Amino acid sequence: MATPFEDEGSVGLVKPRVEHFAEPFALACGEVLPAFDLIVETYGTLNSSRSNAVLVCHALSGNHHAAGKHAPEDAKPGWWDTLIGPGKPVDTNRFFVVSLNNLGGCDGSTGPNTINPATGETWGPDFPDVTVNDWVNSQLALAERLDIDRWAVVIGGSLGGMQALYWAVHHPGRVANCVVLAAAPRLTAQNIAFNEIARHAITSDPDWLEGHYSKQQKVPARGLALARMVGHLTYMSAEGMTDKFGRERRATEHSGEPEIFEVESYLRYQGTQFSTRFDANTYLLMTRALDYFDIADYTDGDLSAALSPITARLLVVSFSSDWRFSPARSREIVDALITASKDVSYAEIETDGGHDAFLLNDPDYCHLMRAWLEQVTL
Amino acid sequence: MATPFEDEGSVGLVKPRVEHFAEPFALACGEVLPAFDLIVETYGTLNSSRSNAVLVCHALSGNHHAAGKHAPEDAKPGWWDTLIGPGKPVDTNRFFVVSLNNLGGCDGSTGPNTINPATGETWGPDFPDVTVNDWVNSQLALAERLDIDRWAVVIGGSLGGMQALYWAVHHPGRVANCVVLAAAPRLTAQNIAFNEIARHAITSDPDWLEGHYSKQQKVPARGLALARMVGHLTYMSAEGMTDKFGRERRATEHSGEPEIFEVESYLRYQGTQFSTRFDANTYLLMTRALDYFDIADYTDGDLSAALSPITARLLVVSFSSDWRFSPARSREIVDALITASKDVSYAEIETDGGHDAFLLNDPDYCHLMRAWLEQVTL
Repeated sequence: MATPFEDEGSVGLVKPRVEHFAEPFALACGEVLPAFDLIVETYGTLNSSRSNAVLVCHALSGNHHAAGKHAPEDAKPGWWDTLIGPGKPVDTNRFFVVSLNNLGGCDGSTGPNTINPATGETWGPDFPDVTVNDWVNSQLALAERLDIDRWAVVIGGSLGGMQALYWAVHHPGRVANCVVLAAAPRLTAQNIAFNEIARHAITSDPDWLEGHYSKQQKVPARGLALARMVGHLTYMSAEGMTDKFGRERRATEHSGEPEIFEVESYLRYQGTQFSTRFDANTYLLMTRALDYFDIADYTDGDLSAALSPITARLLVVSFSSDWRFSPARSREIVDALITASKDVSYAEIETDGGHDAFLLNDPDYCHLMRAWLEQVTL
Repeated sequence: MATPFEDEGSVGLVKPRVEHFAEPFALACGEVLPAFDLIVETYGTLNSSRSNAVLVCHALSGNHHAAGKHAPEDAKPGWWDTLIGPGKPVDTNRFFVVSLNNLGGCDGSTGPNTINPATGETWGPDFPDVTVNDWVNSQLALAERLDIDRWAVVIGGSLGGMQALYWAVHHPGRVANCVVLAAAPRLTAQNIAFNEIARHAITSDPDWLEGHYSKQQKVPARGLALARMVGHLTYMSAEGMTDKFGRERRATEHSGEPEIFEVESYLRYQGTQFSTRFDANTYLLMTRALDYFDIADYTDGDLSAALSPITARLLVVSFSSDWRFSPARSREIVDALITASKDVSYAEIETDGGHDAFLLNDPDYCHLMRAWLEQVTL
């Protein structure tokens, strides 16, 4: 039972589809999008009472492709394939799972790399700032489109957990169960500082061009790679990195150059890969949404008061070696929920997987998720 | 007694001097410097038996200017003025303190920004890699120049602590007492990763020019600023940043721009300041010296065996909120010293000052240092 889900099924081949919303959409910043698209994948089947829908909210660099493959030859399945599928903790034999790319994303939903109808050119840096609030509102429009009055579960990790929490607070009648993984009620100064360094890396790249890089067929690839290196480093634990890389060295591809440490080689690769697939304007937008999020901003910082509207059954999970959003940050949420007399379960998973552990196939974590989700009544 | 040293004296105005070493100097990498300079400051008076000399070893971005001022109008004194001076823990009424800029530095000792006699141009990226070993050897040449057979104390924090430890191991007859602050026996993969990101920031700057920036009157200022932002962030503790910055925001200097977080403003300022005073090639060289250092590399990783030659009395100090070189890393050193039956004292200072705490005027820390150094026999 060490890797209990390895041989269980996949949702198989999936095909994303685009939902177009033609009505003007007001954002928290005051701007109005004339219309917008959300790219969506679904797994499983919506039951006749429409009561088995699970909304998956993605984190900073995630997207709609959470499970399965788009083509048999895909090297990797969706980003949460460990958790979502037939017989897996988010069991698609039972649940109808909805996963989307958030507004402002770069994988098919309306965002900086899509066309601004007012100009006929890509939005680029002129795409308005979006917030967790806006994402939840756009997901609400998606729920209405799918005729889902109430989510059986809203689930997310990190920035996705913040969306799940926001759903439970601001739309309590529409969320039966809520799973908040590796999250925090708001960012600390250190969290913000890491995001700021990532943004600074991007905007310091001469190919950034004040965000208008795509108009000139440029990509601020070096800055984006650096931003990802910083981010990636904070998603891993110190212990995990020691186990994985130690102080091992390897030759570079250039003969004559000194050996580099394995960890250097790994981070460079991760940074370069990311810079080929992600949009820099989206990265800025997503990190700003993280920085500005505060679930208690509408109650002047009183977290327990902020969480008091919740009616959902809740599961909060933290990971012992996560230093981006440490277990103490999850316990802040849990303590406030208990003070507000909410139905909350809490677990701290012992792992050296760091912040990224919510994406990993840890047996304790998967068993916990399975057991808790099995208790969801439909 | 909250800030016990604030009103005690300063060493006053000091004047650095340059010591020239005309003999060829072999480096660990195999290259030979035809000659070299070390810029040096001294505080206090060498006694007639030449037994009261203290060697101060600096960390990554430090230099020879550890105490006092160069001119009355200087905004700040030397980097360790909290600790060094008449009546201070490193008491210049009693000790003769020697502080230098390490080989490869950028503040007056031979390094990348000085002239390579073979070419008549600045060394730039062609300056050979130096190691902690090389620094200690050059400091040994300085000791001989000053006719100091044995240091009463060798003291340093972080990378400086590694030099102090190296002295005690490899020149036991020349070190009577050794103080190792906020250090580690070797870097972890996470430590190396932070250094790698800093280096990558510099070498990704288009003004880097493969290290030949000064020939073209350029400075990779954006990269160097980013490198410093990353470094600086790791020198502060999460708690300290929360206390200092919280989630406060401020306007930028550009009207119309959104407010930024205080912590963003602070890091940008620190980065920019650093980029005007520090040499990028030196930054690469210093971080590589850190990465490659392993006090136990000559005993195949056996730390206790590596430390067995030590005869000095030792003090090891860690700081509770230091996550760059956490207390656990200092305890590795202490455990190995105890196994090797050495005369070691250890203290973990409770502070939210992070890695930089060894530079700060913490009362517990200063009292401890004073008490321990008072026991040094001359």
